[in-house]
Amino acid sequence: MSSTAHKEKIAVLGAGSWGTTFAKVLADAAAGDAEGAPGQIVLWARRPEVADEISQRHTNTTYLDQLTLPELITATDQLSAAVSGAGVVVLALPAQSLRDHLPEVRQALAPGAVVVSLIKGLERGTHLRMSEVIAAELGVADDHIAVLSGPNLAMEIAREEPTASVVACRDAAVAERIAGLCSARYFRPYTNTDVTGVEIAGIVKNVIALAVGMCDGQQLGDNSKASVITRGLAETTRLAVALGGRLETLSGLAGLGDLVATCASPLSRNRSAGRLLGQGYSPEETAQQMTQTAEGIKSAGAVLELAHQHQVEMPITEAVVAVLTGKLAVENIATLLLARELKAEREGLTHDR
Amino acid sequence: MSSTAHKEKIAVLGAGSWGTTFAKVLADAAAGDAEGAPGQIVLWARRPEVADEISQRHTNTTYLDQLTLPELITATDQLSAAVSGAGVVVLALPAQSLRDHLPEVRQALAPGAVVVSLIKGLERGTHLRMSEVIAAELGVADDHIAVLSGPNLAMEIAREEPTASVVACRDAAVAERIAGLCSARYFRPYTNTDVTGVEIAGIVKNVIALAVGMCDGQQLGDNSKASVITRGLAETTRLAVALGGRLETLSGLAGLGDLVATCASPLSRNRSAGRLLGQGYSPEETAQQMTQTAEGIKSAGAVLELAHQHQVEMPITEAVVAVLTGKLAVENIATLLLARELKAEREGLTHDR
Repeated sequence: MSSTAHKEKIAVLGAGSWGTTFAKVLADAAAGDAEGAPGQIVLWARRPEVADEISQRHTNTTYLDQLTLPELITATDQLSAAVSGAGVVVLALPAQSLRDHLPEVRQALAPGAVVVSLIKGLERGTHLRMSEVIAAELGVADDHIAVLSGPNLAMEIAREEPTASVVACRDAAVAERIAGLCSARYFRPYTNTDVTGVEIAGIVKNVIALAVGMCDGQQLGDNSKASVITRGLAETTRLAVALGGRLETLSGLAGLGDLVATCASPLSRNRSAGRLLGQGYSPEETAQQMTQTAEGIKSAGAVLELAHQHQVEMPITEAVVAVLTGKLAVENIATLLLARELKAEREGLTHDR
Repeated sequence: MSSTAHKEKIAVLGAGSWGTTFAKVLADAAAGDAEGAPGQIVLWARRPEVADEISQRHTNTTYLDQLTLPELITATDQLSAAVSGAGVVVLALPAQSLRDHLPEVRQALAPGAVVVSLIKGLERGTHLRMSEVIAAELGVADDHIAVLSGPNLAMEIAREEPTASVVACRDAAVAERIAGLCSARYFRPYTNTDVTGVEIAGIVKNVIALAVGMCDGQQLGDNSKASVITRGLAETTRLAVALGGRLETLSGLAGLGDLVATCASPLSRNRSAGRLLGQGYSPEETAQQMTQTAEGIKSAGAVLELAHQHQVEMPITEAVVAVLTGKLAVENIATLLLARELKAEREGLTHDR
């Protein structure tokens, strides 16, 4: 243990916009609450120059422009130094490369540490959620793995705009502890024990945001997009429930809330990527134009495979995958909405193709 | 019966933007489907000059700019002439004055006619939904009263942008018949038997849109607004279910879909009114600046009274009413979102204040 053993250390792995913003939330929460607050928040950045900038100038201009970070945050490019001695390790890494980093995390992980995932993605090939990848690679029990998700556009939180979120852990007391650590004046976490529901909501949201972006690119209006959002949440809910998640989670902040925030915001990467696809750019051209990853493009195929495994129909996800794989012309996306026979709405929402 | 007795007559009462647009949907549906299609669509306008313009020039420039209406549509300023002989009577009148027109409708109403409400509002004083006002004043049975609602911004439909909607009637066959009459290339109605759920969704949506508009006026971001939408739909659902509506209706196009379309669109009157309130204008000043009624301002108090009667907590509606009645400064609307103790999300969504 370090010399600040009386105060907890928190590690945040990943110094992109969300990891850096969440470190700020933790620091601001600590400043507002002396008791039980961490004494150190260490951010791990892959690139040494980013770590140096954060430690020395308290900025991360690559992702957060001129925002000044709280002094409690230090940074390092040494993963094991960040993790070592931390009672809480927060993961804000790209979904598809998370697994590669976990052996090094495991070596440095303190016994009893809680691992918190901020990551929204489904692992390609295995179809595992991030909490499942973490459990498998770190050997940590479910009651020490939490996930955080909600209507959480990072730039708004960095600007301290009022935001609510959801912390889920199988152990409600652990969820409350993590919620306590990140409760700042402008950031309000609710708790939930439905890890599966929260993760599926965050994963599929990115795919639905691609579909909404495609509608934008095709110049469809708010009526059409609202239908895609409604039907998109319905198919997300079907998948979550088939996997053991709860309906209420999908109707809550991590489900409906996150989907609405993403689909409303011009800041959303996935919606922006969808818009380019909707304008007729290929997936490769779209990737070249994006400065940050649109995770929905990577997860969509895995989501559809998972849905097939569980006999869940996901027509919007299916259409997105068909566009991404060149099997559907994006011009035909509107027919998704309107090309069905007249039928009862409930049937339409649960069994349509 | 008229000389076109072999072809049905449909009357649309109310030549505002939605009534006129819906008459166009009916006419376009008839043009695409010869069998069973109406031979006459008669629009009633209160003002003779509007009726004359529609009949003679096929435009309604007050509400729909230079849009050319189908020739099948004629107009009159004589209510009984419009209603007489019509097999379907569509009501697109202001919610709070609907009742005043119904005695004249009743006198002219053909036996067996189906009455369709496009109106979103709760009658002040009585707390009755429009279908209930219609049943009481016209003496028509439930199985001949339908309601239509969904993510249906009138201007987008007038421009023939793809749109889905919901037709609800206690009698599923009647809902299907009405859905058939308004199925156009760009307008796709689904059917439902949950009239209560569809109406409550449309009524409370206007109140939640006011709250979202207030957030706009207070310059809150998409994270905050997504939380208000999420919690707003949760409280709408609680009220609908308490009144006998179905959860799935609120998760569908008439619930979530309509709420999302309204809150996404700069075209929404209620959101625009909320924005003015959020900027600090009084309800009177806001009303003066609006060219068309923001029904949410009129229905909000009645919705809250109905909720109290049924012991349903509606904290967002309560806050909107408090702002409208001068009991809450609009600057405090953000605390609604964040000023609660940490708690489990489900509890927060079901029992919060």
